[in-house]
Amino acid sequence: MRTEDLHINVDRLMKRLDTLAGIGAIEGGGVCRLALTDEDRLGRDLVSGWMEELGLAVTVDRIGNVVGIRQGREDCPPVLTGSHIDSVATGGRYDGSLGVLAGLEAMAVLDEAGVTTRKPIGVAFFTNEEGARFAPDMMGSGVHQGMLDLGEMLDIRGIDGRRVSDALAEIGYAGSESVGAFKADSYLELHVEQGPVLEQEGFTIGAVEGVQGISWTEYRLTGTSNHAGTTPMHLRKDAGYVAAAIAVEARRLALEMGGTQVATVGVSELRPNLVNVIAAEALLTLDLRNTKEERLQWAEARLNELIEGIVSEEGVGVQSRRLARFEPVTFDPDMIALVEGTAQRLGCRVKRLPSGAGHDAQMFAPNCPTGMIFVPSQGGISHNVAEYTAPEDIRAGADVLLQALIARAG
Amino acid sequence: MRTEDLHINVDRLMKRLDTLAGIGAIEGGGVCRLALTDEDRLGRDLVSGWMEELGLAVTVDRIGNVVGIRQGREDCPPVLTGSHIDSVATGGRYDGSLGVLAGLEAMAVLDEAGVTTRKPIGVAFFTNEEGARFAPDMMGSGVHQGMLDLGEMLDIRGIDGRRVSDALAEIGYAGSESVGAFKADSYLELHVEQGPVLEQEGFTIGAVEGVQGISWTEYRLTGTSNHAGTTPMHLRKDAGYVAAAIAVEARRLALEMGGTQVATVGVSELRPNLVNVIAAEALLTLDLRNTKEERLQWAEARLNELIEGIVSEEGVGVQSRRLARFEPVTFDPDMIALVEGTAQRLGCRVKRLPSGAGHDAQMFAPNCPTGMIFVPSQGGISHNVAEYTAPEDIRAGADVLLQALIARAG
Repeated sequence: MRTEDLHINVDRLMKRLDTLAGIGAIEGGGVCRLALTDEDRLGRDLVSGWMEELGLAVTVDRIGNVVGIRQGREDCPPVLTGSHIDSVATGGRYDGSLGVLAGLEAMAVLDEAGVTTRKPIGVAFFTNEEGARFAPDMMGSGVHQGMLDLGEMLDIRGIDGRRVSDALAEIGYAGSESVGAFKADSYLELHVEQGPVLEQEGFTIGAVEGVQGISWTEYRLTGTSNHAGTTPMHLRKDAGYVAAAIAVEARRLALEMGGTQVATVGVSELRPNLVNVIAAEALLTLDLRNTKEERLQWAEARLNELIEGIVSEEGVGVQSRRLARFEPVTFDPDMIALVEGTAQRLGCRVKRLPSGAGHDAQMFAPNCPTGMIFVPSQGGISHNVAEYTAPEDIRAGADVLLQALIARAG
Repeated sequence: MRTEDLHINVDRLMKRLDTLAGIGAIEGGGVCRLALTDEDRLGRDLVSGWMEELGLAVTVDRIGNVVGIRQGREDCPPVLTGSHIDSVATGGRYDGSLGVLAGLEAMAVLDEAGVTTRKPIGVAFFTNEEGARFAPDMMGSGVHQGMLDLGEMLDIRGIDGRRVSDALAEIGYAGSESVGAFKADSYLELHVEQGPVLEQEGFTIGAVEGVQGISWTEYRLTGTSNHAGTTPMHLRKDAGYVAAAIAVEARRLALEMGGTQVATVGVSELRPNLVNVIAAEALLTLDLRNTKEERLQWAEARLNELIEGIVSEEGVGVQSRRLARFEPVTFDPDMIALVEGTAQRLGCRVKRLPSGAGHDAQMFAPNCPTGMIFVPSQGGISHNVAEYTAPEDIRAGADVLLQALIARAG
């Protein structure tokens, strides 16, 4: 059988997904495996065990990343795949785990077919991708690729006050492999989309072009509390109105800009928050994302102007605070083309699209050719126990991963 | 001395205001005299005592309203003035008390001048105008004028579970005077504006044309919670955006309608209220007021249309609930003209304006010629310990009250 005709065994992959989802299982079919907890340890033990069964050379590095390498005909940097197996507190069973277990499945298929690739192929799971217990997120892959400092990260305390270094030691994953020196030939990650685009538009595979840049700002507006009945419209300094007007302008701007621009006001709070009192204070957050740094900067600047205008017209005060800012990441054109071409060859409807969420892959992008494969998330739902991807889509995504890894490893 | 040249004694009036403000005094110069509490009893005892010192015939009715009548030359229905001496929990010292004590001051001036008017003049303070302990507000004046049922009101329980009838008995103000039979020649009430119009526009006296109608509606919006990064703008069902758009439309409509129309979104809450999650739910309230019932109805209808449009375009669900609805009250043209003319004769800048807040006077409006005199509230602030009206404005308002009462009583 030619390697081009190899397919993954979807039953085996679904069974592994089920088994892993049994660890930290919560009501509704989801999981709670916060990074470096006992549940994470049990998940790590399970997946490391599978890596060893497959004969991979397994290492654990100093931030707890686990990498399993399948030897190639040549001793050169491996083609790497992987993702994470930690979750948010009410996570779904596919987020992260799919990429790791599909990587293992690819190894199993190569073993069964007796294929040895030219380059080695590796599969990894990275520590604390979610950032739900320890901030920042993508901690393990960040340290792995030299984007984050090991010492600083080991010193970080979680929401429960526990330090990363202590938590790593407690679960037995404070490894000895040094970090920052790992060279990959390339990195390719399969992940659920966590958004609705593929499903809504009828695509099975997403060839991910990059990760959107993120700009988070918090605004505190200070107006004047007053009687809703006795204060004429033109004498108001209504912090609540200003908050609403900002949210409406953000929506309008995103629609006007089009492309990948999104804008969300997810937090909005008024004080005193009474039916007949004009709000004295409002708090809101603005989440702006774009795949292009210059467009994101333009959106930030334009909204600043608009907010200045609204605020000064109403006569309210404003204090703003940057909560987060990440530049966009662009994936390698060859890797995007590889995913797209492989999907087409396999008869899948494939769409190029950006990722709105952050992923381990973005830490690799500056260092080696990097790409991602998305499969549809039903209803676009993620970080939710109701997260779901159909088995036929999982099969398609894992097949694309398998064939792309073979193509890359030669 | 001609009665037209009589003036109130502002020092005596300010002293009485100070003395009454000493009962239930709270930090910042305000008062807490919730209806039918011990503080209210002490205030009632003080003011009733002053009524008796002035030789008024004092009665207490079954809902606890206290009325003091000064005899006229003829035995006919009295010209009545008054207001309330109960307060909200963090009330100001002028709200209500000014109208009652300025009425007493007018009596004192007539006594000193040896004037007996043709018609009797009465001064009253009505039970539970604020509604802060027992709902509804304007309870005493409502029962007094047959707008509210005595039995029902006596049965109402307060925020502390106490019944009105029991609380009245406990403080010794469950009077024996029957209610619903009182006929007044007319009713004229002096009150602080509780809004910023007079101060902002440089007027000393407001000739109140009526009380605005009030429409309160609560909206619960149900959208779809989703990832702020991965959900394209056109696939969103953002309950938070819809809430913001409604608030902006309400503002725009009020400005477009002009006149006395005001619109306020005072309550706005999102769920889950997270920076990177599109809101699944939003709660907001809409407070609409107008002096004209048909305009208020038009505003309600127009906003319903606008909300229907926004909601259906975004694809979110909406449930609305009416929280309150009062029709506007129009005061008697002769009484408005009397206030205006008296103020002009006394050299005060006077403006006709509606009241945005409810007052005891509105209960009298359907039964006898009724009017109100407003004096400026500094910064428009009320229901707040920082409530303030300058002594020269208090003098002007009390002088207008004195002269208007004399004119009306003959």
